[in-house]
Amino acid sequence: MEELLEELLEECRPYTKQGKLADYIPELTKGNLDDLGIYVVSSDGKCYQAGDYKKQFTIQSIVKPILLLQALLDNGIDRVRSRVGVEATGKPFDAINMNDQTLLSENINPMVNMGAIAMCTLIKGDTVEARFQRILELTRKLACNPEIEMDQDVYLSEKRTGNKNRALGFLLKSYGMIEDDDVEQVVDCYFRVCSIRVSSKDLAHIGYVLASRGKLPQTEERVFPSKYATYVNAILMTCGMYDGSGDFAVRVGLPAKSGVGGGIMAVAPTRMGIGIFSPGLDAKGNSVAGIKVLEKLSQRMYLSIFKRN
Amino acid sequence: MEELLEELLEECRPYTKQGKLADYIPELTKGNLDDLGIYVVSSDGKCYQAGDYKKQFTIQSIVKPILLLQALLDNGIDRVRSRVGVEATGKPFDAINMNDQTLLSENINPMVNMGAIAMCTLIKGDTVEARFQRILELTRKLACNPEIEMDQDVYLSEKRTGNKNRALGFLLKSYGMIEDDDVEQVVDCYFRVCSIRVSSKDLAHIGYVLASRGKLPQTEERVFPSKYATYVNAILMTCGMYDGSGDFAVRVGLPAKSGVGGGIMAVAPTRMGIGIFSPGLDAKGNSVAGIKVLEKLSQRMYLSIFKRN
Amino acid sequence: MEELLEELLEECRPYTKQGKLADYIPELTKGNLDDLGIYVVSSDGKCYQAGDYKKQFTIQSIVKPILLLQALLDNGIDRVRSRVGVEATGKPFDAINMNDQTLLSENINPMVNMGAIAMCTLIKGDTVEARFQRILELTRKLACNPEIEMDQDVYLSEKRTGNKNRALGFLLKSYGMIEDDDVEQVVDCYFRVCSIRVSSKDLAHIGYVLASRGKLPQTEERVFPSKYATYVNAILMTCGMYDGSGDFAVRVGLPAKSGVGGGIMAVAPTRMGIGIFSPGLDAKGNSVAGIKVLEKLSQRMYLSIFKRN
Amino acid sequence: MEELLEELLEECRPYTKQGKLADYIPELTKGNLDDLGIYVVSSDGKCYQAGDYKKQFTIQSIVKPILLLQALLDNGIDRVRSRVGVEATGKPFDAINMNDQTLLSENINPMVNMGAIAMCTLIKGDTVEARFQRILELTRKLACNPEIEMDQDVYLSEKRTGNKNRALGFLLKSYGMIEDDDVEQVVDCYFRVCSIRVSSKDLAHIGYVLASRGKLPQTEERVFPSKYATYVNAILMTCGMYDGSGDFAVRVGLPAKSGVGGGIMAVAPTRMGIGIFSPGLDAKGNSVAGIKVLEKLSQRMYLSIFKRN
Repeated sequence: MEELLEELLEECRPYTKQGKLADYIPELTKGNLDDLGIYVVSSDGKCYQAGDYKKQFTIQSIVKPILLLQALLDNGIDRVRSRVGVEATGKPFDAINMNDQTLLSENINPMVNMGAIAMCTLIKGDTVEARFQRILELTRKLACNPEIEMDQDVYLSEKRTGNKNRALGFLLKSYGMIEDDDVEQVVDCYFRVCSIRVSSKDLAHIGYVLASRGKLPQTEERVFPSKYATYVNAILMTCGMYDGSGDFAVRVGLPAKSGVGGGIMAVAPTRMGIGIFSPGLDAKGNSVAGIKVLEKLSQRMYLSIFKRN
Repeated sequence: MEELLEELLEECRPYTKQGKLADYIPELTKGNLDDLGIYVVSSDGKCYQAGDYKKQFTIQSIVKPILLLQALLDNGIDRVRSRVGVEATGKPFDAINMNDQTLLSENINPMVNMGAIAMCTLIKGDTVEARFQRILELTRKLACNPEIEMDQDVYLSEKRTGNKNRALGFLLKSYGMIEDDDVEQVVDCYFRVCSIRVSSKDLAHIGYVLASRGKLPQTEERVFPSKYATYVNAILMTCGMYDGSGDFAVRVGLPAKSGVGGGIMAVAPTRMGIGIFSPGLDAKGNSVAGIKVLEKLSQRMYLSIFKRN
Repeated sequence: MEELLEELLEECRPYTKQGKLADYIPELTKGNLDDLGIYVVSSDGKCYQAGDYKKQFTIQSIVKPILLLQALLDNGIDRVRSRVGVEATGKPFDAINMNDQTLLSENINPMVNMGAIAMCTLIKGDTVEARFQRILELTRKLACNPEIEMDQDVYLSEKRTGNKNRALGFLLKSYGMIEDDDVEQVVDCYFRVCSIRVSSKDLAHIGYVLASRGKLPQTEERVFPSKYATYVNAILMTCGMYDGSGDFAVRVGLPAKSGVGGGIMAVAPTRMGIGIFSPGLDAKGNSVAGIKVLEKLSQRMYLSIFKRN
Repeated sequence: MEELLEELLEECRPYTKQGKLADYIPELTKGNLDDLGIYVVSSDGKCYQAGDYKKQFTIQSIVKPILLLQALLDNGIDRVRSRVGVEATGKPFDAINMNDQTLLSENINPMVNMGAIAMCTLIKGDTVEARFQRILELTRKLACNPEIEMDQDVYLSEKRTGNKNRALGFLLKSYGMIEDDDVEQVVDCYFRVCSIRVSSKDLAHIGYVLASRGKLPQTEERVFPSKYATYVNAILMTCGMYDGSGDFAVRVGLPAKSGVGGGIMAVAPTRMGIGIFSPGLDAKGNSVAGIKVLEKLSQRMYLSIFKRN
């Protein structure tokens, strides 16, 4: 298996140069386009890795399924659905999901920015700090890594430049979707959780828990009810790769989430969690080489949900 | 199993009244809201049915995956993808999928009208009649039913009133996406294939072939290559239920396609094909009771792709 | 005065090269970018001209105010307003003026294609030919030129390629705005009236009638009631130059209408009608040099409605 | 003349009940639907009034032309135009004037909120307070009323609830249109200037200065160059009444600006400035009875720019 992973990285290395580093958060432009790593946590109890799998980067949008899990744990499916819908928006990750002059909760998706900001108001906690800590704790638990921390520089960089996200926050507020909370606080919470620093290894562990329907590897401790895995995996399948989700479903066929930090977390239900890192992004904000590696891995191991025999 | 189906129909019968008959094709308003039927073709070689499973209705949008299969058979994946994209549009089935003044093939989806009309130009055949016959033949083959015919009244009704579809056709033409073909002919082909008359039983058989990755039940004759099943099923998962696909993924978790005639064809990969009929539609054009039956069947039999153990 | 006109043409000649010939109607690409002419019909009973004022070109969108006048004469203001609104659309001339899934008459403007096509259904006449003849007659009368004819080549060129306009027609039909009429016939009428061949001299005469509130020069024969002049001039001021109307109001300050044939008809109320021809267009479909000439003429002669003393 | 004004108010009084008080700023709901007043400053040196012409209300959007004048005085036409366009948007006053993912200065109009917020960054002054004071001073000067003040309650009400405007501000910031300024400060400046308290009398005086091309009544002191009057009046004509500007041009035919406080300022070039107050608004945010009074006044006195003889 590790041989296979090494092989895939070699085959896909040329694609690392086809992407571009995210440039709308100044701190992210400091990444290295050459980085490429993969980590797999398998249901047979083993782990496999290749390349820069230890390299750290910020989780960015891959925190969205974690926010969604915490929102579900804190509120249940019904309340979460009444606030944040499940339909693909057909638009980029930072789009304003409004029709003309109306903003409806059913038009907000938890896997794009507007929905993720709305979810931050659903996380229990009296302060931004308290909410952030709960998301950080859940991330650590899912990743089986108590040392995960926030990247202060990226956080400050996002906080300084994240005005589109502030605009989305104030739109949500003006349409009654951020009730008592202060917009700047809500957006600050979002900036913080996006700045959590992870590695491919961490993402693979998180993916594994979604693949195993809520249980941690080894200890088999249950972190969340099985039905939440169904909910999150279904949404990842239809919307996890932004407006590239349809292409990803066709080529890879797995629930997955990308982040502009260059990470992808993929879920092969019952079989494995996969973490990939390669910071070169396509126009939609997804890792070019990362998708390519997943496409090949899915083909070789018949991972696609639509290919099972 | 048949007992289970009977039970589900009884439980879901109240939902038949919650929907409305499609009213934008005059002929469809003649349907009966009380109709409710289900048919299952299982990989164990058996068939199960309940309710009005013999009742005939027009296939409407459920012909879209068949159009896509024929387009793939005639052109291959690359050429089809260069003409019709795979991303969810975030809009209703008859929406104009344009951004401002640009119409790009990547914004057209094969499961909504604009993409389906574009696909009609990809079907081989010198005349409308020839193209229609090929789709009809493929439908008969997939459904294992040589007696399937077009409903002349519905066809004429659509032809008389289908001006939104004509508008979509002329937009495609003006942006170069209907090359040599005559728009009225292309749209006429679309009206005809939508008017093919099927039953739940037929839909279950068609779904079975997608579930078995291209092979007919019993004879195991291969109708299309396995990779086309992957392609079609992936698109059905992300976009088969229009702008209700996310909700359907969460609640049912199967590749499926609905039609405004009241049918739903669902694909439980490797396990079964399912056909349902109940003509009461929700605001998005999907059968209300049909989705409810599928939700319960999926729960009882652990059919959801996102729930497998 | 003629000296002034000569001078202005010389000053503005360099701008003729900055525009491009319309390319979406094949026949229009045969124009000559060097053409530049102006004609003025003044309320003092005199006419002035310079450059290629005799050159003929197709009227294109400048027929829209004539269509509107005929629609008003045939139906009165109330009925016309109930079918075609008066607000600027903020979009290009061939835009689809819909909000999401709704098409409302108040969102259709008579000075852009969608509204003009809708107006064709308001012109009395049993056949396309009869309607076209009435518009042609009104054009001849307003222009004091009984020899005005349609350009057959441009008409056929538009008819062959005008699929965007057909799409707009079918959208109008599908939303009930083309009642009994056949779409192809309505659009054919539109193609014909757009292909009427005029010169700057003709446009100046037409503009004069709007400037004199309905009376022909010399004979003072009244062609339409004064209130229709108010209605048409107001609409020309806010929407006559498509999504360049605001810029034109600021720079020139006159009711005017442009056509992609290169013509501009301008109305200086009580003072003069102006016709200009220069076929090089800007991105919005307006004659570049034509606007420049009008800007300078307006400045020198204090024509702007917003500058009167 | 005063008799005429009295008469008009009586005729139009029934319309006061057809509108609704603005409800999106809580403080504005305290208005009285019965209020109706008019004031005219005429070029013959006289003033005429009727009804509640002394009644005070907040200026709201009628401050937009004043902001534009100050921006022009501080930056000149070229720089202002490079930052804020002149085309009608075809959308409501608080719309997000973006195409898909792009925000261009040419799509921002100074008479809708997004453009007005952008203009606040063009006003010279080191602090919000300094900028606000300059706008207040200009308002006092134009209105010939040194006692004009801000309404503290309305300001605080807007500041508390104006999240849509904040969203617009952060969008402008994220697209580089609010350079060094702090968004909250810019928006605060906007809230303040909107809360300036005026009467119909004040609005009539302001309108008079625009009608006289920059000169105060009586003293004939020039407040701004004549060319700025042309610029502002042209924009008021095409966009002063939001997406009701076309209707207003047809019915009234004067440059004018409305505010959700219930005021309308109208400009009859060379003849008079008009101020009206009636707080019942139509769906577009314009005073219902106010427009009706202006329509009748325009008809009786032949004020329409499109009707001059």
